[in-house]
Amino acid sequence: MTSSARKSPAREFLRSVETVVGGKTLGLHEPVFAGNEQKYVSECIESGMVSSVGSFVGRFESGLADFVGSPTAVAAVNGTSALHLALVAVGVKPGDEVIVPALSFVATASAVALAGAVPHFVDVSDETWGIDPDNLKTYLETKFRSDGGRLVNGDTDRPVTAIVPMHTLGHPCDAAGIREVANQFGLVLVEDAAESLGSYVDDVHTGLAGHAGVFSFNGNKTITTGGGGAIVSTDTDLAHRMRHLSTTAKIPHPFEFNHDAVGYNYRMPGINAALGLAQLEQLPQILEQQRALYLRYREVLDGIGFGTLRQENPGTRSNYWLQAFVLDSGSRVVRDDLIAACLESGISVRPLWKPLNTLSPYAGCPSAETPVANDLYSRVVCLPSSASLAGA
Amino acid sequence: MTSSARKSPAREFLRSVETVVGGKTLGLHEPVFAGNEQKYVSECIESGMVSSVGSFVGRFESGLADFVGSPTAVAAVNGTSALHLALVAVGVKPGDEVIVPALSFVATASAVALAGAVPHFVDVSDETWGIDPDNLKTYLETKFRSDGGRLVNGDTDRPVTAIVPMHTLGHPCDAAGIREVANQFGLVLVEDAAESLGSYVDDVHTGLAGHAGVFSFNGNKTITTGGGGAIVSTDTDLAHRMRHLSTTAKIPHPFEFNHDAVGYNYRMPGINAALGLAQLEQLPQILEQQRALYLRYREVLDGIGFGTLRQENPGTRSNYWLQAFVLDSGSRVVRDDLIAACLESGISVRPLWKPLNTLSPYAGCPSAETPVANDLYSRVVCLPSSASLAGA
Repeated sequence: MTSSARKSPAREFLRSVETVVGGKTLGLHEPVFAGNEQKYVSECIESGMVSSVGSFVGRFESGLADFVGSPTAVAAVNGTSALHLALVAVGVKPGDEVIVPALSFVATASAVALAGAVPHFVDVSDETWGIDPDNLKTYLETKFRSDGGRLVNGDTDRPVTAIVPMHTLGHPCDAAGIREVANQFGLVLVEDAAESLGSYVDDVHTGLAGHAGVFSFNGNKTITTGGGGAIVSTDTDLAHRMRHLSTTAKIPHPFEFNHDAVGYNYRMPGINAALGLAQLEQLPQILEQQRALYLRYREVLDGIGFGTLRQENPGTRSNYWLQAFVLDSGSRVVRDDLIAACLESGISVRPLWKPLNTLSPYAGCPSAETPVANDLYSRVVCLPSSASLAGA
Repeated sequence: MTSSARKSPAREFLRSVETVVGGKTLGLHEPVFAGNEQKYVSECIESGMVSSVGSFVGRFESGLADFVGSPTAVAAVNGTSALHLALVAVGVKPGDEVIVPALSFVATASAVALAGAVPHFVDVSDETWGIDPDNLKTYLETKFRSDGGRLVNGDTDRPVTAIVPMHTLGHPCDAAGIREVANQFGLVLVEDAAESLGSYVDDVHTGLAGHAGVFSFNGNKTITTGGGGAIVSTDTDLAHRMRHLSTTAKIPHPFEFNHDAVGYNYRMPGINAALGLAQLEQLPQILEQQRALYLRYREVLDGIGFGTLRQENPGTRSNYWLQAFVLDSGSRVVRDDLIAACLESGISVRPLWKPLNTLSPYAGCPSAETPVANDLYSRVVCLPSSASLAGA
């Protein structure tokens, strides 16, 4: 303790992180390709079916659905497009408002904007880092009024139609509790599970609590398809509709080009699905590594004295997608000093996202007060989290 | 002639096509991977940079820009997204009308709808199969009025802001002529060059006549990235803006997540760009094959007596992306008889797209009369067009 007290907190933090990272210059979260990635992608190219025809998209969708415990899955070009598609398919219309946490990657808001709707930001819980059902209920009761069976924002007169909770850094929020509130107010629930593949509340995988759940397979995620996303839903009719809309809403026909809705070109290409299929096979192993990495970080950061490592909440199982160091409330240690020390040593770290209600394109959107989101933003440093750092 | 007269036209057509296809059961247009496809994709996976970081996206963009003769190119997840992004970037706003040919793949209209705008369909020329500048000019003068410097639809009161000509099956329409009309009326020109990589008017590549031009690299195109698209523009500031919007409009910063506009997740992933880079190297060879295939079809179809093969127009060079047999006007031979005969023998053929103004999702949109689009739709059969059919 006395020798540690003489060091600057930033230097002590850096030394601890370096113990885990071990001189490797990695991005924040790099993929591990230890299985059939080369083989399947090579087979896909060999077959000529690199686009959405061919077997790999269907095999990837089946594998994902099996893993998550969903009757089906719809693969898409990326998580943002998947979320946009899900919102449209569940009935979000231009001019609607959609409840979104202020603490999220910008895609949560931009998918709402893509649907022509307006994000309405709410705060997150300091326990789950996601939307809190009780606070949401109080907020809906206070801010909105019922108007002909619809919930309408008292300030803007716009209807609110959906809620999009997000499972921050892979730690599940209380989606089942949010579903109850959504049901009570007649709202649709779409989970932004982009970060939470492999995360559960009790034994239920994230993404299954509401009408649809959306995953991302960007290069920085637990598994990757290069770029990609997917939607799961326990409503197979809805999933069928989403798959149809994702493939230009073309009516199946031997030769005629007929389309029965404004559709999208959102289907995941085969070459990306081939990569993803191999990654899915590795997923259980990768999740073990992510958890092992958490334990390695905890070992070196446990006694640091000015913060703690983000731990999974009771009753949940986190995929530990992104390891996060949380400065103690009231600590005089400054987040950006820790970040600067690491970046100067070539170690990729980053804060949480700037709360979305502070970004210029969304600053004019309706928002609750978001003290918890603002506070977490000031206190969290995300650590290098590639599964390869877990050690042997 | 006497022996041919005894055969049914459909059977004669089938025999001619079979001569070229030679018993191969191919899709309408399958890719050829004869170069570094496996090598580059394997290198990309090896590097771990399968997402938008890494060198392949930039190398693909540079290679494409060089080939087209554009100062720069912006790679995207697909042609539809690229067209949507281009429309937003040039200033198309929700509620605007955008002039679109009735004869096109549905993506031309759905990209307009994605931007929140309304497609306004016009007819095509029976010579170019694309928008005709003179007819367009007459139509704009008749149907629209000038209102405070803006061109406004006299029926709907909506402003029209952009024109999106399309180069049907790879045959260039008169984009330079359309640009003059666009300039005269203060409209923006975005070329849907999805089908026309390798097609020129005089020595100018398609896509460069207006503010932006969009290509597709879907699996059925001249070259493929699995799924993919790109935008070219001679306006490098505009291209820079489009690249920024395609990557969530994130402001470059060592660690902070800040975004200065409603952005998109439209960046092409590295693994797709790696495939595309290898395909670009093969492009000159593939274009030669597509032209050789045209000559093979012409040889067998020349004397058929009830139609002709679509030939490039004087002053243009077509990439011959999709070979097309055109029934003579007034012929009693029925398009669908030819299609049925081929499909029954396992040969992939198809008609042109149903005119977009007849599709239910767009039937309520404003439209000119489109007799030429309707007529071409009834008379054209697209033939198997994979470069591999060109023979040795």
